[in-house]
Amino acid sequence: MLYPESLERLIEQFQKLPTIGKKSAQRLALYMLDQPAQVSQAFAQALLDVQERIHPCARCGNYTEQDICSICADVRRDQASLCVVEDVPNLMAFERSGTYRGLYHVLGGTLSPEKDRGPEEIGIDRLIDRIQGGDFKEVILAISPTVEGETTTLFVAELLKPLGVKVTRLASGIPMGGNLEYFDEMTLYRALEDRRRL
Amino acid sequence: MLYPESLERLIEQFQKLPTIGKKSAQRLALYMLDQPAQVSQAFAQALLDVQERIHPCARCGNYTEQDICSICADVRRDQASLCVVEDVPNLMAFERSGTYRGLYHVLGGTLSPEKDRGPEEIGIDRLIDRIQGGDFKEVILAISPTVEGETTTLFVAELLKPLGVKVTRLASGIPMGGNLEYFDEMTLYRALEDRRRL
Repeated sequence: MLYPESLERLIEQFQKLPTIGKKSAQRLALYMLDQPAQVSQAFAQALLDVQERIHPCARCGNYTEQDICSICADVRRDQASLCVVEDVPNLMAFERSGTYRGLYHVLGGTLSPEKDRGPEEIGIDRLIDRIQGGDFKEVILAISPTVEGETTTLFVAELLKPLGVKVTRLASGIPMGGNLEYFDEMTLYRALEDRRRL
Repeated sequence: MLYPESLERLIEQFQKLPTIGKKSAQRLALYMLDQPAQVSQAFAQALLDVQERIHPCARCGNYTEQDICSICADVRRDQASLCVVEDVPNLMAFERSGTYRGLYHVLGGTLSPEKDRGPEEIGIDRLIDRIQGGDFKEVILAISPTVEGETTTLFVAELLKPLGVKVTRLASGIPMGGNLEYFDEMTLYRALEDRRRL
């Protein structure tokens, strides 16, 4: 063991984080050691607080410290529009963009036989219940157009058909600033399919 | 504020770390949130333990949980050889390589007028005291050949002259696997100067 035991243990903790390799973990641990004690204490406290206080919103699955998240609690948001996302980071991407003013529903990921995630694991029944019990005019399936995401979108769309609510999906196409030549044929096909009249 | 308060605070803590940007910090905080409570608790505890237990070795400046670090305490190491490094990560680089079996002395960085680091700040008097009070046959200045490092090497070498101990420095040259054409003239010059007979 190169470093004293407690330091090795902190390096290990950093190394468990995604995208942090051994070298980075060492650098981060040594950096923390160089800081005043309050810095480590604040970091430790933040880790404990998050674990203790944050849980899913009882309505939509977004993170919150209350029963209901700040989006669900906001009466100024369009209560007739429901945007279904695969996880909280994707919800946040929409919020950051400021392009959507309705409500959300957060799934527990996308359907994935490989990762043992079926309809139950990602909470599709909860979504159906919510739509049946609610008064939504439109359900927007805003799930990433990956292979798993597409499967999930089609699966959910099929289940929503009998409920009589309008179901839409995000447009697929060339991202802004992207050069056509760098995108695969499926993206080009979709961009053409979803073309808009000018 | 996009995320609940405690989550924002954890993101902030991650963002204070070197090389961790806003996006990475969000990703890491959300990752922690997804883990069982014990993971956060272990991380928090590791941060607190390091801050509480680790301090510099009274003899060489290496990190330790004892008074004297494991290297200084190891009687099998060559007590006549002292390797002067600029910080603990550089000491660790030597230890990992397994190429050196003597003792170390860790400076508090390199001399840097810009960063207000003079001889006192980096503890050069402590180094001189240790060499005067010790029985070293050789002092190896193993400081990185940067501009600041070179200044430090030459400065320390000058101070050690009157002490009558043999003072050496690391060879500069082309790193193993490196292609000559990619190195600057100073590196080539040094590689030529330090050439070895075969």
